[in-house]
Amino acid sequence: MEHSEVSSYCRIVVDAMGGDYAPQNAVLGAIQAQNENPAIKLYLVGREKEILEVLKSNNIEFDKTCIINADEVISMSESPVKSIVAKKNSSIVIGSLCVKDGQADAFVSAGNTGAVMAASTMLIGKIPGVGRPTIGTFMPSKGEVVTIFDVGASVDSKAQHLLEYAIMGSIFVKEIYGIPDPSVGLLSVGEEDSKGNEVTLAAFKLLKKTKLNFVGNIEGRDIFGGKVNVVVCDGFVGNIVLKFAESFVGLLKSKFKVFADRSLINKLRVLMMKGTFKKVLKEFDYQTYGGVPLLGVKGISIIGHGSSSVLAIKNMVLQAKAMHDKKIINKIEESLKEYANISE
Amino acid sequence: MEHSEVSSYCRIVVDAMGGDYAPQNAVLGAIQAQNENPAIKLYLVGREKEILEVLKSNNIEFDKTCIINADEVISMSESPVKSIVAKKNSSIVIGSLCVKDGQADAFVSAGNTGAVMAASTMLIGKIPGVGRPTIGTFMPSKGEVVTIFDVGASVDSKAQHLLEYAIMGSIFVKEIYGIPDPSVGLLSVGEEDSKGNEVTLAAFKLLKKTKLNFVGNIEGRDIFGGKVNVVVCDGFVGNIVLKFAESFVGLLKSKFKVFADRSLINKLRVLMMKGTFKKVLKEFDYQTYGGVPLLGVKGISIIGHGSSSVLAIKNMVLQAKAMHDKKIINKIEESLKEYANISE
Repeated sequence: MEHSEVSSYCRIVVDAMGGDYAPQNAVLGAIQAQNENPAIKLYLVGREKEILEVLKSNNIEFDKTCIINADEVISMSESPVKSIVAKKNSSIVIGSLCVKDGQADAFVSAGNTGAVMAASTMLIGKIPGVGRPTIGTFMPSKGEVVTIFDVGASVDSKAQHLLEYAIMGSIFVKEIYGIPDPSVGLLSVGEEDSKGNEVTLAAFKLLKKTKLNFVGNIEGRDIFGGKVNVVVCDGFVGNIVLKFAESFVGLLKSKFKVFADRSLINKLRVLMMKGTFKKVLKEFDYQTYGGVPLLGVKGISIIGHGSSSVLAIKNMVLQAKAMHDKKIINKIEESLKEYANISE
Repeated sequence: MEHSEVSSYCRIVVDAMGGDYAPQNAVLGAIQAQNENPAIKLYLVGREKEILEVLKSNNIEFDKTCIINADEVISMSESPVKSIVAKKNSSIVIGSLCVKDGQADAFVSAGNTGAVMAASTMLIGKIPGVGRPTIGTFMPSKGEVVTIFDVGASVDSKAQHLLEYAIMGSIFVKEIYGIPDPSVGLLSVGEEDSKGNEVTLAAFKLLKKTKLNFVGNIEGRDIFGGKVNVVVCDGFVGNIVLKFAESFVGLLKSKFKVFADRSLINKLRVLMMKGTFKKVLKEFDYQTYGGVPLLGVKGISIIGHGSSSVLAIKNMVLQAKAMHDKKIINKIEESLKEYANISE
């Protein structure tokens, strides 16, 4: 692996062992991203032998010096912190250390989410001023771009953390989606300023003190309504909302099945609409969005769904590249400095 | 109004002024429920003149002595606690007092939710052992009956409150849906016992000590998945989840519209499936379920959506009757006594 800085390149380490379909999907997705954008300098971290097998069976030429061997694999069910302490030779630990040591600009993994978060936070380290890093995700909406921060990086967030999520989420949306002044809403139980729980009421006051485009409280219905670009909430709430949203299509399909099973004419009705239904529901396919960024660490870290497809991995790598091009880490650092005086 | 106990009747006071379409929908829905179930002794509370007008213009015969005049109306936007203190002659206050004084068994209102909750809690009073009353709602699911407690009666719930929600929700589901031993799940960010925030982790331990059919933590995806009959969560989370769920259908419709607008053939595709789509989505029509019960107060209190239809009001009244028949208040009282020794 090269140790010198090559500014024209974005050096991205992809966890070849991450995800339910690793190393196949991880390797193929990473290679596709590199083919699509030659400014990506790709490194694959994982069991060299297994990586080589995937490359060979798919007739892919790849510079062997860009394979970083890592003998250990952290499985999806392992305890995050314990596993990164115990498995120093895992792809997640070695990949994260590449970013920490400045040998790479980004780490991309569809492996154990908790372990990637822990490795990024503990090994790459937090940006000064960040209490808690956050993961955000894209949400389908009626109109504009909607993202939600945090969706599970941390629970029991304090008001100050919600402020950080808002700052970091705004930068991400501005830079990645090209929205000049992203609107920010605080997820609560009513639109009035006085509605909320202890933490959101305190966070409301902090957000009011910023120059962010803070519109105030929003409600559950406003997420899909596209009312704001950045929905801010505690990771406990965001994680429940995200998983709940992901299950909606499944519920709908099961209701259509029940309807179809009621009569032959119903079955025909459902059959006739199937194609259209599928096309529309494509917009709900979270896989195509790729992974979610972990913001607040001193390097780019993209975390993917365990079931990531080749396309999802490719999009994760391209997203890492975009974050690098936009210097998101530096911008977060600057913005946090600007707001350092705001506290409860 | 009769003051004597008539055991064969269930005396239900309906807030004629409650809801966006009051008194029309409230009066007609209440009358329909009484016609359907003659064991309901119906009282209408509100501005007598307006009630009489609705009755007259719809050619309805109704015993005038069962109209309880209330000159004041609490609007949908008024501050709950302030309004019930200030408007002693409002339909919500007078209706609640009828239950408190034992002149009625149930109060049903589609008026200002917060005001009805406050009036029920402060005027009717809490059942001994209840820290916080809870409102629950029915959720569509892939399979079994799913309800969620709390959906907004209170935020910043403590572990002890979540335990109460589980106890009261279980009784409600058992009695109203006839499920012998309802399964209970604690809404969290992972299935493992160790996942959660401070409050759910503490609540987990309390729930383990009960004889409830507690299955452990469930995730956002398990709500629609129909994994448990009673989903337990803080009202902040539940309210966001509920409003988010209510917005799914709107998002879907808007996505179909975008798809249809793309081409003529798409428009035809959507047109062809419209009927089927509507039929299936009927299952998502929250209105037909009627209102939500406020559990934990010493009387039956059913709260409806502001936009309640005549059908919704009718269902709310019938639900109040069913709760009375099943002696839910007594059963909650007994169950809370049984679990009185469980605490953090």
